[in-house]
Amino acid sequence: MKKRVVTISREFGSGGRTVGKLVAQRLGWTCYDKELVLEIARRSGFDLSFIQEHGEYAFSRNSFLFDLSAHGSAAGTLSVYDQLYIAQHNIIAELAQEGNCVIVGRCADYILKDREDCLHAFVHAPVPFRADRIVRLYGESADAPEKRLKDKDSRRKTYYRHYTGRPWGVMQNYHICLDSSVVGVETCARMIAEAAAGEGEPAQGG
Amino acid sequence: MKKRVVTISREFGSGGRTVGKLVAQRLGWTCYDKELVLEIARRSGFDLSFIQEHGEYAFSRNSFLFDLSAHGSAAGTLSVYDQLYIAQHNIIAELAQEGNCVIVGRCADYILKDREDCLHAFVHAPVPFRADRIVRLYGESADAPEKRLKDKDSRRKTYYRHYTGRPWGVMQNYHICLDSSVVGVETCARMIAEAAAGEGEPAQGG
Repeated sequence: MKKRVVTISREFGSGGRTVGKLVAQRLGWTCYDKELVLEIARRSGFDLSFIQEHGEYAFSRNSFLFDLSAHGSAAGTLSVYDQLYIAQHNIIAELAQEGNCVIVGRCADYILKDREDCLHAFVHAPVPFRADRIVRLYGESADAPEKRLKDKDSRRKTYYRHYTGRPWGVMQNYHICLDSSVVGVETCARMIAEAAAGEGEPAQGG
Repeated sequence: MKKRVVTISREFGSGGRTVGKLVAQRLGWTCYDKELVLEIARRSGFDLSFIQEHGEYAFSRNSFLFDLSAHGSAAGTLSVYDQLYIAQHNIIAELAQEGNCVIVGRCADYILKDREDCLHAFVHAPVPFRADRIVRLYGESADAPEKRLKDKDSRRKTYYRHYTGRPWGVMQNYHICLDSSVVGVETCARMIAEAAAGEGEPAQGG
């Protein structure tokens, strides 16, 4: 079945963002990654840096902001984090309704899990490959990149679990999971685009 | 990097066995599924039905055989189950050394995890798809096929955990995981064969 939306979930540094862009290029669709942050900022009024920091990462319990406003008021109003999640949720649902888009991260796989016109992909890679990649491509410090990777993944896991109620990165929640260190970033993109285009036999075959 | 061996792990009823055969056809390689059972029987002397029943499924604790001989003797000899695992392990390692083969199930992904010339794939699908498939293709009873699926998967998980010390079906242990209900059995085979053939850019790309 041909799909109208692709979601890409990814381990930090695996190349998932690049895969998302390449999938969108192949299909002639729009890729929402940084574009999604801009769109959320435009529609919600949240600050760009706040969305980048808190839109898919659990907050640090030591932060000033956590003490100040994480839990909302005594009257039960939503915390700023919950408000951001809801804003993201609504925008992702709207973008999927419009279709022809690739959405990177931000629990989109969970938010769109009941839409049959979505393909859910996950890109991962072993830590040494990702550590090398973030130092080489993103200019991350070569000092303990493994620690930074693990911290990022851990905060994504915590965020995902908190807002979706299910564990992050379970293969049964995705239609295609690829190790970019072996399959290659370009080939990952080609395979995901092919699966989204519904190339191959119908689901009941074989 | 071009691979010389493909392992296929699979949820029961997902079509993983068929995928294995099709991958081997595409690559011109040998597929070891039932063939592996025959090979193990030939080399180890174990009975075919014993290998089929206990070669990748945890035994039932209620069985007569469990009481009789599962735990070996008081002198610390290996149980028949452990002897079978070791026989399988050695044959799988030898087949991989020869190369140009697809090996279905039997912890081959774990046994060959340190060989860089192996591609590890996992095929899964939602329960309703698999239930329909086993009734339709294997003539399984239409009476509670879901229960049978869950029992089979559960015994595979227990077996795998027991002999490998790691959980079954964790995406990071595989290079390519596919939902056959969405991707399609034929397309699963094509993608796995392409990944094994090393089509696409080198691992460091993108």
